[in-house]
Amino acid sequence: MKIAAHLTVALAVAYAAPASAQFAKPEDAVKYRQNALFVMAQHFGRVGAMVNGRTPYDAKVAVENAEIVADMAKLPWAGFAAGTDKVGNTKAKSEVWSEQARFKEHSDKLVGETGKLLAAAKTNNLDTLKTAFGSTASSCKACHDNFRSQ
Amino acid sequence: MKIAAHLTVALAVAYAAPASAQFAKPEDAVKYRQNALFVMAQHFGRVGAMVNGRTPYDAKVAVENAEIVADMAKLPWAGFAAGTDKVGNTKAKSEVWSEQARFKEHSDKLVGETGKLLAAAKTNNLDTLKTAFGSTASSCKACHDNFRSQ
Repeated sequence: MKIAAHLTVALAVAYAAPASAQFAKPEDAVKYRQNALFVMAQHFGRVGAMVNGRTPYDAKVAVENAEIVADMAKLPWAGFAAGTDKVGNTKAKSEVWSEQARFKEHSDKLVGETGKLLAAAKTNNLDTLKTAFGSTASSCKACHDNFRSQ
Repeated sequence: MKIAAHLTVALAVAYAAPASAQFAKPEDAVKYRQNALFVMAQHFGRVGAMVNGRTPYDAKVAVENAEIVADMAKLPWAGFAAGTDKVGNTKAKSEVWSEQARFKEHSDKLVGETGKLLAAAKTNNLDTLKTAFGSTASSCKACHDNFRSQ
């Protein structure tokens, strides 16, 4: 029984640890999430430029960029680790940590939408891509409105 | 013939344009390459921690991180666009632009090595992973030694 209890504690620690333990220092976590979001935004912007007619629509380029967006969308959230709420130049609101379940709903939503964006890009239909781009952009905005200070 | 000549010029411009045209301003290109490299380095460091025994070896986690490393390794190079050699706090040496072919050899080498790192992670053999990690790290170092000021 004692061993089982120790194991339970050990597993709980192991499960709880990763997010903060992954970074050498809190500043790295903040930098990581900001950097991942910036890289994602650059590629999302290139899809947007096609969707909005600022650059010619190129299905191959759309897929390439949407693939990177979908990959990058999975990364930033680990950077919102415990103890990184008032570090550096973060714009993250305290609600990221005080309403973690709701924040996770938002980040999961983005991951889902970017998956649909990639699928839409692969259809090689600009109208389909436009719709998916709009939904993804709404997902970005919803999270910024709720969890990022202006 | 005139049309053909115009087409050739147009194609040459289209081919030459992407790298710099992808970014709204030179500062974004510098930020992009630095951010992509930072995200890559974080995940590479987690593989390194396992290889060096600082964290327990977990084959699944190794694959997850190596996958991100291999994806991220493809990104930074577009950020070394023309006209971004003396922008912001870049440590990139002028050789990045004056010896583009050699720089590309180095970046291609890293992309190749990170592909091998992922393959090694998937073998679920720590010794194989160690070897691939060492080769990848050497590739990072070679490029830093030649193209990044200290």
